[in-house]
This record gives sequence, structure tokens and C-alpha cells, in this order.
Amino acid sequence: MLVFPLEGPILLTGFTPHPRNVNMIRNWMTEMKKWNVGILIFNDVEVLDFAGPFEVFSRTRLVPGLESRRSEESAPFRVFTVAKTSTPVTTTGGLQIIPEFMFSDAPPIDLLVVPGGLGTRSLLSDQETLGWIRQVAAKAKKVTSVCTGSLLLAKSDLLENRRATTHWGALDLLQSLNKSVQVERDRRVVDDGIITSAGVASGIDMAFYVVETLYGREVADETARYIEFRRTEQ
Amino acid sequence: MLVFPLEGPILLTGFTPHPRNVNMIRNWMTEMKKWNVGILIFNDVEVLDFAGPFEVFSRTRLVPGLESRRSEESAPFRVFTVAKTSTPVTTTGGLQIIPEFMFSDAPPIDLLVVPGGLGTRSLLSDQETLGWIRQVAAKAKKVTSVCTGSLLLAKSDLLENRRATTHWGALDLLQSLNKSVQVERDRRVVDDGIITSAGVASGIDMAFYVVETLYGREVADETARYIEFRRTEQ
Repeated sequence: MLVFPLEGPILLTGFTPHPRNVNMIRNWMTEMKKWNVGILIFNDVEVLDFAGPFEVFSRTRLVPGLESRRSEESAPFRVFTVAKTSTPVTTTGGLQIIPEFMFSDAPPIDLLVVPGGLGTRSLLSDQETLGWIRQVAAKAKKVTSVCTGSLLLAKSDLLENRRATTHWGALDLLQSLNKSVQVERDRRVVDDGIITSAGVASGIDMAFYVVETLYGREVADETARYIEFRRTEQ
Repeated sequence: MLVFPLEGPILLTGFTPHPRNVNMIRNWMTEMKKWNVGILIFNDVEVLDFAGPFEVFSRTRLVPGLESRRSEESAPFRVFTVAKTSTPVTTTGGLQIIPEFMFSDAPPIDLLVVPGGLGTRSLLSDQETLGWIRQVAAKAKKVTSVCTGSLLLAKSDLLENRRATTHWGALDLLQSLNKSVQVERDRRVVDDGIITSAGVASGIDMAFYVVETLYGREVADETARYIEFRRTEQ
């Protein structure tokens, strides 16, 4: 593994890199500063629940325009999927995804995305998945969910006394899982330390909300323009 | 293979199915009437370009509500991915998809979806892919594209003298591929016999437009409500 000083030392020690190494160093530094976005996937996950945030986070660039999208250089996120095992996951509707990582070999996750779908129902009693979510959430800088992904957050004891939302068809179920949750019934994105969103497509709004929180409105709006998504107010 | 009379004969011949078979027959008939939606995928396809229409078409139900989404019974579409070979496809951003079919074994396609992405550039000179698109389009009931997928339709000679659109960053390229195309620069969805849409997220609008055209506004709006997508006017 390459160990490289992240900031400061390069200048403070008077180390002057050869010009041909400058870009390489900039790339290393960029690489080391990227947020790792881990998206949980499982059988019967809803396609747009994970694909929406995957699209937004993986296409965000700090440098605007078309050219910057041709490389990862100004990408602030490194996005990957994680599943319990390495077995391909079959989504609702039958799309087959090969997870990039499994629970046991996933890199540290800065931003966790827990999507929803019919597959969440059986995961509500899956201690391995709930335990993994709890463990990753404890170290992540941000924890998010889309749709019925918030049911898994509730079962992982992450929504205690928090405002949260879910798909409109699961609002009562969310409440029943934890009486202390203040269920928001009319919001697409709810940020109360943990960020939950309403059904399916609102995961795209959630992702843009996170991008805006971290990198400002301009970066979020410019990325929305790139993917031709019309952001709406809450 | 089961060969079963599609319509009419059941009643016309006086054939009276046993009550326990009525549902089975209804299911068979439903199955046989479903539209096959074939979504082309390839390396460096843009995630939301194919995942948006996949979500919309695969979650459309003719019976409204939550319950109908738990089965395929009232689903008017059967959605699948098709790639040149059976090798997993890596999207822009690194999502890995196992294609359900390859060119050589895909079932007949009623509705073709050609998504876009950076991978379209090398496909502009890939005769096997262009030939496959041309061949499928000749038999399909509807041909659609998302984003720079329309470049592939233009190179397959399908947009001759038609109004069409693409991602805002590729409008000039589309025009340069075929002077006879009337490039629409301000529309999200353009239907001129062949249905093209603007960048990335506008593929979701395109899919809802197709659903509305085939099954009416109510079915489209109810499906949009299910996936919590806010449809916008053209």
C-alpha cells in the first residue's frame, strides 16, 4: 500500500517534486480526499433507489462542464456497491448486478446509502445486514436512505428520536418499528443527522441535497444540469 | 413451448375452463400480451440512461396501488437488458451488470430502448451493434432512445428526415451525423415515429410518455406516484 502525506508536508518540508510528478501527486491527493460512497444492494432492491444516487454521486464533478466528466480527476466521490456476499444481486424487475464489494472486504465508507425495495422486508430480521449497517454507520460521516431503506435504519436503531421519512406506502410501518421516530409524511428529504428520503425517485433529490450540503449549490445544480434532472424544492 | 390461443377461441369454441383454471388462463393471456422491452447495454453506458426507463417500465401496473406491485400479473411490460455478448457490462462509474440476453439469443423486442453514455462514441463505428439496432428496429412496435443513444439511431439510419433530440452536449454532433435530422434543442421528449429524449434523467420522462401513449394518463400518473417521480410538462 502506498503511504503518502495527505496535506502540508509536501510544502512544509521544502520537498519540490519534479514537474512530471506534479500531476501524479495532485491525482494522489485528489484520490486520497475522495469520499467513499458505499451503496448497499440486496435481492429485490428497487432499481432506481440505488441507481439514482449512484448516478448523481458518480457524475458529480467539482470542475463544471462536459470535459471534466471524461475523467475522475475532479470527482469528489468514489462510488461502489456492497452486498452481503459476492453473489450477483437480482433487483426487482430482474436486473442482475455484480456487487463491487462484500461486507467482509468493503473499504471504509464515508457516505452510506441504504436503498429500499421489497427486499427490505426479509432484511428486517437479518441480523448480519442490520449489524453491518450499524457498524458502518458508526464510522461514516453521513448515513442516508432511500425509500424503505429507512426501515432498515430504524431496525438498526439509527433513527431513535429522529425525524425521518420513507415511501408513502410504508410510513405507518416505519412508525411501528420505532415509536420514537418522528415520521415526516410530506417531505422528499429529511435531514436530522441521518438523512432519509421518500420513495424511489426522491433518492435523486436526496443525493443532490447531500452534494449541495458538501460542495455548494453551484456544484449540485451544475451536476443536475449535466444529467438533465430538474431539481424541485422540498 | 406452450402454444395457447391468444384471444377469442376460448369463448367462441364454447370451451369452459374449470374455475380453478380461470386465473391460470388469465395469467397465460396476460403473459402473452406483455410487451417485450429490450434495453441495450454496453460498456460505459450511463447508469440512469438505462436504469430510469428500466424502473418505469418494470414497475408499471395496469391495476393501481401497492399490492399490484408485488406480482407481475398486471404488468404490461416484460423488461430485459441485451448486450452484444454475455460478458458483464461495466457502466460509467463502474457498476457491473450481467446482461439478461445477448444479441444472438434475445427474444423478439416490441419496444427498443437505446440508452446513451460515453460508450456510444466507440459504438458509432461498431457495425455489429448498429446492424442489430437496425434489425430490431425494423420489427419493433416502438423505438426509443435516451441521451446520446440517439447518435446510434442516427448512425443506424433510423432518424432520416425525423425530428429528434439528444443530450444538450451532443446536439451538434447529432446534426453532423445526419443533415436531414431536424434537431430539437429545447424538448425533453421528441416523438416523430421514433421517440428520442434529451440527457440522462429525461429518459424517465420518455418512459412515462410511452406508458401514457399506450395505457393512458391514469396508468402513467399512478406509476409516477408509486415511484414518487414528479412528471413535468414538455
